[in-house]
Amino acid sequence: MRALILGGDGYLGWPTAMAFCRAGHEVCAVDNYLRRKIARDTHSDALMANPLLPERAALFERLTGAKIEVAIGDCCDFAFLSGLVGKFAPDVLVHYAEQPSAPYSMMGYDKAHATLSNNLTATFNTIWAVMQHAPDCHIIKLGTMGEYGTPNIDIEEGWIDIEHKGRSDRFLFPRQAGSLYHTTKVLDTDLLWFYVRIHGLRVTDLMQGPVYGLSTDEADLDLRLLPNFHYDDIFGTVVNRFLVQAVARIPLTVYGRGGQKRGYLNLRDTLQCVALAAAHPPAKGELRILNQFTETFSVNELAERVQRVGRSLNLAVEIQHLDNPRKEMEEHYYNPAHHGLAELGLKPHLMTDDVVAAMLERVFEYRDRIVADRIMPRVRWR
Amino acid sequence: MRALILGGDGYLGWPTAMAFCRAGHEVCAVDNYLRRKIARDTHSDALMANPLLPERAALFERLTGAKIEVAIGDCCDFAFLSGLVGKFAPDVLVHYAEQPSAPYSMMGYDKAHATLSNNLTATFNTIWAVMQHAPDCHIIKLGTMGEYGTPNIDIEEGWIDIEHKGRSDRFLFPRQAGSLYHTTKVLDTDLLWFYVRIHGLRVTDLMQGPVYGLSTDEADLDLRLLPNFHYDDIFGTVVNRFLVQAVARIPLTVYGRGGQKRGYLNLRDTLQCVALAAAHPPAKGELRILNQFTETFSVNELAERVQRVGRSLNLAVEIQHLDNPRKEMEEHYYNPAHHGLAELGLKPHLMTDDVVAAMLERVFEYRDRIVADRIMPRVRWR
Repeated sequence: MRALILGGDGYLGWPTAMAFCRAGHEVCAVDNYLRRKIARDTHSDALMANPLLPERAALFERLTGAKIEVAIGDCCDFAFLSGLVGKFAPDVLVHYAEQPSAPYSMMGYDKAHATLSNNLTATFNTIWAVMQHAPDCHIIKLGTMGEYGTPNIDIEEGWIDIEHKGRSDRFLFPRQAGSLYHTTKVLDTDLLWFYVRIHGLRVTDLMQGPVYGLSTDEADLDLRLLPNFHYDDIFGTVVNRFLVQAVARIPLTVYGRGGQKRGYLNLRDTLQCVALAAAHPPAKGELRILNQFTETFSVNELAERVQRVGRSLNLAVEIQHLDNPRKEMEEHYYNPAHHGLAELGLKPHLMTDDVVAAMLERVFEYRDRIVADRIMPRVRWR
Repeated sequence: MRALILGGDGYLGWPTAMAFCRAGHEVCAVDNYLRRKIARDTHSDALMANPLLPERAALFERLTGAKIEVAIGDCCDFAFLSGLVGKFAPDVLVHYAEQPSAPYSMMGYDKAHATLSNNLTATFNTIWAVMQHAPDCHIIKLGTMGEYGTPNIDIEEGWIDIEHKGRSDRFLFPRQAGSLYHTTKVLDTDLLWFYVRIHGLRVTDLMQGPVYGLSTDEADLDLRLLPNFHYDDIFGTVVNRFLVQAVARIPLTVYGRGGQKRGYLNLRDTLQCVALAAAHPPAKGELRILNQFTETFSVNELAERVQRVGRSLNLAVEIQHLDNPRKEMEEHYYNPAHHGLAELGLKPHLMTDDVVAAMLERVFEYRDRIVADRIMPRVRWR
């Protein structure tokens, strides 16, 4: 299979490129280093230094003999992207090429508009490049569970059958996201669904929850192959923030009451999910939506888990509640379905105490690089 | 009331500007002439010559003594728009400033991307200019009934209560539009709803059906004040196409089987609806959605009506079915609600035979300007 990975320098993109390459596929990883630039501009550099994409690919080839092709360029440049799709002729295109920070998207007009424009244009260009040059190619698009928000009904897998006044029809499950970044993913889904209906594209839209973890079969070969690990308030997830706070002996900062529930998954399972989606493409004219997570936790449950495991490693972990910088429900119903990927064969790696301990130990090795004042929230939603 | 009309040169914008001005409001009409430029580029000029906005405003002032302020500029230029909102300090902002042609949005990458970028950016800039400079201002946004598509259930007014597995919640009514242009309006609604939730904007989103008519109290003062009338395949509506075909003795071209039903309204009723919305603003933090049409017809019913009235005026009107250039259901259930504007006081002007006859007579005066080869569809969806 020929796999084009857009956003190939990212936390998911780089491990995906390595995993697809190791599985015997022809891989081209594409990136314009937008995340690195935003991280520099907002003083949010990752915990470990990650070599640039060509260096990582060269190292990976020395270690494994497997070659990842690299293309540095902007997916918002249609001439670049359509030329690449035409030349590479992918069977599958994995689209991670988006500005992924919710706080960044809430930092005022310029950054909000940059997020909207970048994310929509990258998706639009992907659609058109595939329509024009590789119409049978399977687009695997990274969405987010955040598109659904936290409705008071069970969240189904992308679609819902509505019975209304004695008639019925099937619709996209209603979406209402909690940040402009998450809203751009809602718009992406609307765009993909339109072009799937009109032009018979073949698309999988993965509604992914927050991902944690640094260990994959390939990343474990060499520390320089690790995916980027952000613990700052711009790119860091809640799991990473808690891990770093535990190691740095800073109280874990729970936003608000901490009853916010989300569906989480291990980075190893993201790789499984994308590989399973690629191995089982939908039909042409089908928008397949899969909810991509393995278990749900509240923020309080996560904090308690990191505290318990941290203490077992002799870290004196405390928990502190902060005024919530975001606008979100802090206690809510949450029961999202996630059958589709299990039916394709996903074998979950759950967040056991051993997994948390391994992450804490890995972060501990880099404890001297932790910059504490990157952690507290600098952006407020209101 | 201080009313800022974005897209003030348009078919709806110009009559709205005149009507608001005549009603005693302070009016500023804004446009960048994008529609005129696209019309020139695609050989789709309007039937009558419409003077430019400053000339129309000067004429209107000579005739009525009432002054419409004019600002020529691009709402996608945030410095321009936010400066204008800051200076003019509107109580109500009516946002018509979008590329309004569905076929244009389906003419290939460049025009599709221009439509997406123009429409989303104009809406995004409107939101931010109001948030920053006029947070109490009521945004009245022109959406379209086309956002809903043609579902197999009753279409409610913007929102739907969903009962699902014993729980319930209220959501935006599901949207799935039939062109990229209509899809940009879906994205607009998503964006507005996000910022209403987060920043407490005050928004009315008008889901309007196709509008017909040239006569308003103000437009009737002088032929040079007429709104633009397009009958071409790019900007023309089905009603205008049929009127021109009847006058030019060309068979009325029904796309496909002609069972496509839509909700229509008279231009006079658009003016009433916008005035009623402005006079009854929603609360801050409310996205009020109103379905704006007065009666539904199938394309066949419209064709038969124009044929009947045309024949009564001694026009030998024939009807011809064409292969449908669009991708749409040609027979479908259609039962959209439209209570909200009636409750605010709308008194409909329905499409009586007299109304059709008056439109035919007005078009007849311009019959020498009809260019027949602008009428047949040049753009196919597939």
